[in-house]
Amino acid sequence: MSKEIRQHIERIVPLTDNEFDFVLSHFTPKKFKKHQFLIQESNYVPHDFWVIKGLVKAYHSDIDGKEHIMQFAMEDWWVTDYQAYFNQTKATLNVSCLEDTEVLCLSLENRDKICAELHKVEHFFRKKSNAGFVSLQRRILSLLNSNARERYEQFLVQYPNLLQRVPKTLIASYLGVSRETLSRFSSL
Amino acid sequence: MSKEIRQHIERIVPLTDNEFDFVLSHFTPKKFKKHQFLIQESNYVPHDFWVIKGLVKAYHSDIDGKEHIMQFAMEDWWVTDYQAYFNQTKATLNVSCLEDTEVLCLSLENRDKICAELHKVEHFFRKKSNAGFVSLQRRILSLLNSNARERYEQFLVQYPNLLQRVPKTLIASYLGVSRETLSRFSSL
Repeated sequence: MSKEIRQHIERIVPLTDNEFDFVLSHFTPKKFKKHQFLIQESNYVPHDFWVIKGLVKAYHSDIDGKEHIMQFAMEDWWVTDYQAYFNQTKATLNVSCLEDTEVLCLSLENRDKICAELHKVEHFFRKKSNAGFVSLQRRILSLLNSNARERYEQFLVQYPNLLQRVPKTLIASYLGVSRETLSRFSSL
Repeated sequence: MSKEIRQHIERIVPLTDNEFDFVLSHFTPKKFKKHQFLIQESNYVPHDFWVIKGLVKAYHSDIDGKEHIMQFAMEDWWVTDYQAYFNQTKATLNVSCLEDTEVLCLSLENRDKICAELHKVEHFFRKKSNAGFVSLQRRILSLLNSNARERYEQFLVQYPNLLQRVPKTLIASYLGVSRETLSRFSSL
């Protein structure tokens, strides 16, 4: 697992062995079973999670119990309720496992500490946040601008691996379209 | 103008006079008239813009010429086509002035340079990017989860100042609702 997170970080910034050991010592590994929750609405959010193995969904449940998917996260992706994590407020999202999942947990305190100690790590997280920002802007544009079929096709291109692992109902929810609409142009 | 950007940065990280002068020397001031473009679709995007004074809209024009508003930016806000800016690709957005506007321009090269030279500046931009990421996630949830009236009410609470300065048609476009729908519950 340490090899994978090192590769993940070093795609943006190379680290010496000592630097990497220092960084890694601020993460805690944790395992969850399918259907278990990493984060539950109304609770505080102590960690950001980097997925070693598995698949999770981050979602908001509305008053009718309908799920709105904020994001999925599989191997090599980060996930948490970022609003609650960064602002140290209570979660408005749930994060739960679609498969058995192993993660590395990073507290906000430890994130800020490794960023303060190692400029390179601050650089890494700035670049990751910029990339995340861009991908959210694309999604907003897609929600404003594209019809259901176009959104689905963009999803296929962007996340071909997710398609095999995520139930269609959840993809529909992620895209903001009904399950029935999705069936009309999805072959499955 | 240098006072304002210094205050803006120092809300996150204090700078010495020398540090601030170094940072500021990497920005270029520029003035635009109402209706002028800061960025035009299909062009490269050399700068991120920090608004000193004025108001701009960043938007995508679809094939029918309909405008989809990605963001507004007034005093103290940043705006560009971030996808094109960070990836050095051609713009898919336009940014144009709703009022006469003064900005400070920051090239990607200069941004990376001041981040590399001053750890504090990298910290500043990481924090800004995190905050931007959180606000985009909130907007996505609002697009997935909220009806037109709720979105409008969230907008009022979040951006009371914009309401006075932005035409209702553009607010409707930002919210992803029709102008007619907006009229039904907006008093103007």
